[in-house]
Amino acid sequence: MLATEIIAKKRDKQALSYEEIKWFIDGYVKGEVADYQVSAWLMAVVLNGMSFEETANLTKVMIESGKVHDLSDFTDRPLVDKHSTGGVGDKISLPLAPIAAAMGLYVPMMSGRALGITGGTLDKLESIPGYRTQLSDTEFKEYIRQNGYAMTGQTKEIVPADRLLYALRDVTASVESVPLITASILSKKFAEGAQSFVFDVKWGLGAFMKSQEQAQVLANSLTKTMQALGRPSVALITNMNEPLGKMMGNFLEVEESYLALDGQGPSDIMTLVERQACYMALAGGVVHSMDEAQTLYYATLKSGRPKEIFLKNIALQGGDIAQFQSMIGTHRSAEFIDIKAKESGYITQIDAGAIGRSGLILGVGRAKTGDAVSDVAGIEFKKKSGESVVAGEVIARVYAPTSAQLSQAQATIEGAFSYGKTPPTAQVMIQKEIIAL
Amino acid sequence: MLATEIIAKKRDKQALSYEEIKWFIDGYVKGEVADYQVSAWLMAVVLNGMSFEETANLTKVMIESGKVHDLSDFTDRPLVDKHSTGGVGDKISLPLAPIAAAMGLYVPMMSGRALGITGGTLDKLESIPGYRTQLSDTEFKEYIRQNGYAMTGQTKEIVPADRLLYALRDVTASVESVPLITASILSKKFAEGAQSFVFDVKWGLGAFMKSQEQAQVLANSLTKTMQALGRPSVALITNMNEPLGKMMGNFLEVEESYLALDGQGPSDIMTLVERQACYMALAGGVVHSMDEAQTLYYATLKSGRPKEIFLKNIALQGGDIAQFQSMIGTHRSAEFIDIKAKESGYITQIDAGAIGRSGLILGVGRAKTGDAVSDVAGIEFKKKSGESVVAGEVIARVYAPTSAQLSQAQATIEGAFSYGKTPPTAQVMIQKEIIAL
Repeated sequence: MLATEIIAKKRDKQALSYEEIKWFIDGYVKGEVADYQVSAWLMAVVLNGMSFEETANLTKVMIESGKVHDLSDFTDRPLVDKHSTGGVGDKISLPLAPIAAAMGLYVPMMSGRALGITGGTLDKLESIPGYRTQLSDTEFKEYIRQNGYAMTGQTKEIVPADRLLYALRDVTASVESVPLITASILSKKFAEGAQSFVFDVKWGLGAFMKSQEQAQVLANSLTKTMQALGRPSVALITNMNEPLGKMMGNFLEVEESYLALDGQGPSDIMTLVERQACYMALAGGVVHSMDEAQTLYYATLKSGRPKEIFLKNIALQGGDIAQFQSMIGTHRSAEFIDIKAKESGYITQIDAGAIGRSGLILGVGRAKTGDAVSDVAGIEFKKKSGESVVAGEVIARVYAPTSAQLSQAQATIEGAFSYGKTPPTAQVMIQKEIIAL
Repeated sequence: MLATEIIAKKRDKQALSYEEIKWFIDGYVKGEVADYQVSAWLMAVVLNGMSFEETANLTKVMIESGKVHDLSDFTDRPLVDKHSTGGVGDKISLPLAPIAAAMGLYVPMMSGRALGITGGTLDKLESIPGYRTQLSDTEFKEYIRQNGYAMTGQTKEIVPADRLLYALRDVTASVESVPLITASILSKKFAEGAQSFVFDVKWGLGAFMKSQEQAQVLANSLTKTMQALGRPSVALITNMNEPLGKMMGNFLEVEESYLALDGQGPSDIMTLVERQACYMALAGGVVHSMDEAQTLYYATLKSGRPKEIFLKNIALQGGDIAQFQSMIGTHRSAEFIDIKAKESGYITQIDAGAIGRSGLILGVGRAKTGDAVSDVAGIEFKKKSGESVVAGEVIARVYAPTSAQLSQAQATIEGAFSYGKTPPTAQVMIQKEIIAL
C-alpha cells in the first residue's frame, strides 16, 4: 500500500477498507506514515466524511493501536458505561456510576479532565483528599470486581492513535469532524473494557455543539457506528444551555453528586441520572423494558446501596471517607462574593457558556492542558431559571482562592443571568432518544 | 494570524486574502508554519478550490518567496513567453523562441526537464555539444538583450515556495488541483521576467490531462488568473493524442525544430508554432490583429532571421555551431530497429501515451528526477495518422544506446499504431482559443 493512494481514495470520496485504515494509522503510530500525510488525509475526512462502516473500522484500528482493559473474564454482569460530550456543571458520571453498579452492572469508567468551559470528572474526584485517579490495570479491575465500578484516567498506553491524531487535528483545523469525533469517543470507551454505552450528547451555550441539529448528527453517528460494530447503545440529545444542577465547582459538584445518590439532587440532575441509569440497565440486559428499569432504579435509590458503593469507591481509590464527609457543606474558599438579582421578576436564563468561562477565571476549569485547578472554587446557585426573584436578592454565591479572581469573574457571572416579567417556557432536558439496542 | 485559522477558513470555503496567504506561505518557507499544517491546507484547497483572485494572490506570494529575473529595464520590446503543459514530441519552444524574437519580442524562457512520458526542453537543448542551460542571471539578461531570447533552467532561488509546495503535494495526493497547478505555472513564468503569456494546454493520450474538459478548466483558470493579475494572455487547448511532429528524441527534436525555423517542419508543428508566435506578438502589442500577426510571421520565416538567431543562441550559450550542423541527419545511436506496418490500409492513430512510455525505455525520458537521458535515442516516424501503408512497410525507425532497450521497447511502439481500411477523421490540432488580452 502507498500512503498517497489511501489519501487519494478519501480525497476522491471512496470508502477505505479496514486493511487500508489499519495500514495507514498503524504506520502513523510507528512513524512510517508522515504527519503531513496524515493531516492531508484528516482534512479529506473532514470535508468528504466517512461511512459508518469506515468509522467503525477506524474505531477498531484505533483501539488496536494500544492496550485495552481486558475485562473479558467479567462475565457475571454486563459491562456498561456512559459518555457525555461535556458540559457546565455536568457531574452526572459521579452519581450515575454507583447507581448503575447498584442496579447490577459493572461500570468501568475512564474519564477526562476539565478543558475550556467544560468540567472534568477526574478533577472533581481529586477534590476528595487522597483520591487517586490513575489506577493500574490490576487496581482498576480489582475495584470493579469488588464494588461494581471504578474511575480512572486514560494512560499513555490506551489508544495512542487517538492521542496522536487529536494532537494533529488540533493544529490543523480538523477537530470538527463527526466521524473523527465518533471514532475518538468510541475507541477510548471500548478501551476501558465496556461493551455497551449510553451517550449523553449535549448541545447549547455550555456545550461543544451549539445547535440541537449538530448534536443529532453526532448522536446518530455514535449509535450507527456502534451498530456497525455490532454493539448496543442509546444516545440522549440533551439541553446544555443552562448549568446543570445548583453547583459548579470541583468539590461543590462532588457534594451535589452525593446528594443525588439517594435521589436528593436537583431535578435536572435527577432526570439525567434516571434516564441514563435506566438505559444502561436496558442496554446491559439486566431489565427488559424501561418500565422494569424505572422500578429497579427507584428501588435502588431507596435501598441506600448507591451511597454505600460511592463511599466504598472513595476508600478503595485512596480517599478518606471521614474527611470527605466532614467537608460537605463547608469545603469552600474563604473568599466569596454574592451575586444579587438585578431586577424583580423571573430568571429566564442562566447562560452556561458565560458560567463556564467564569469558571476558567475562578479556577474551576483550565484554559489549557496542564493548568492547575482549585477544589474550593465554584458557584452555588440559589436560584435558577423559572424562579421568581426580588431585585437585590442573593441568587448565587461565588467562591475562588483570591478576591482578585472573584472581582474579575463577577461581571461575567452577573451577565449570565437574564430576567423577565413572566416565567420562561420550561426547557426540555432530554430532547430526543436514539435507541439502538 | 494563526495557521489553524487560515486552514479553517479554506476548510469552510471562505476566501483568503493576500495577507493571509502571504503569512501562511512565507511562514512555511521560513519553517514557522509546519508541513503538516500546509498539507492540511493543500487538501482543503484541492477539495474546496480557490477563486481566481485567491489564485492570483497565491501566485504573487509564491513569486515573492524567491528571486526573480528583473527585466524591468527591458523596455524597448515586450517581454512575452509561452508555456506548454507538456507532451510527447512537444518541441515547440525550440523553434518558437527564436521566431518570436525575430518578430520583435524579448523571450526570457525558463524551461524544465523531461519527466515521465513528457519531454523536457532543457534535455533537448543539452544534446547540442557544449550547450549550457544553467545561466547566471547576468548571462540570461545579456543573451536576451543581444539576441532576443535565452533558454535557462530554474535555479533553487527561483520560487522556492513552489519547490516546497510541489514536494509536499507529491506525497499527500494534492497534485491534481487546478488553482495549485495554475499558481505553480504562473509563479515560475513570472519569475523569468516575462509579462504576458501564451499557454498551450494539452489534453489527450500523451498529456497530463486526459480529457478536453480538464484542459478547458485549466486554460480558463490560467487566463482568468492572469486577468486577476492584470496581465494579458491567450490559452490554446490543443490535441496531444498523437506524438507531435515526426521526431521524438532529444537531438532528433532539435533537428526537427531547426527545420521548422524557416517553415520546413511537419504541419502539426508549424500549426502550433504559427498560432503561438502570432498570439505572442499580439499579446506583446507588436501587432494589433491576428491578420497583421500572420503577415509578420510569414515575412519573418522568409527572412531567415529565426535560423540566424537560433544559431547565435547556440553560440552564446556555449554550443558549437559547426558541430551542431554536422550532426544533423546523422546524430543517432548506432543501434536501431525498424517498425513495420502490421496491416495494409491507413494508420488511424499513433498513441502518444504508448510512445511516451517507450521513450522511457529507449532513454529519451526519465522515470524519476535525476535519471540520465540519452541524446541519440528516439523515434523517427516515417508515417503518421491518415497516411496509407502497405503491410511490412517501414513506418518508424527506433534508436537507443543498446539493442536490449530496443527489444524491450519494440512491442510498446508497435502497439501504439492502430490501422484501418479507411482514412481516419483528421484530428483538429487546436480545439479552442481563449483570448484574454
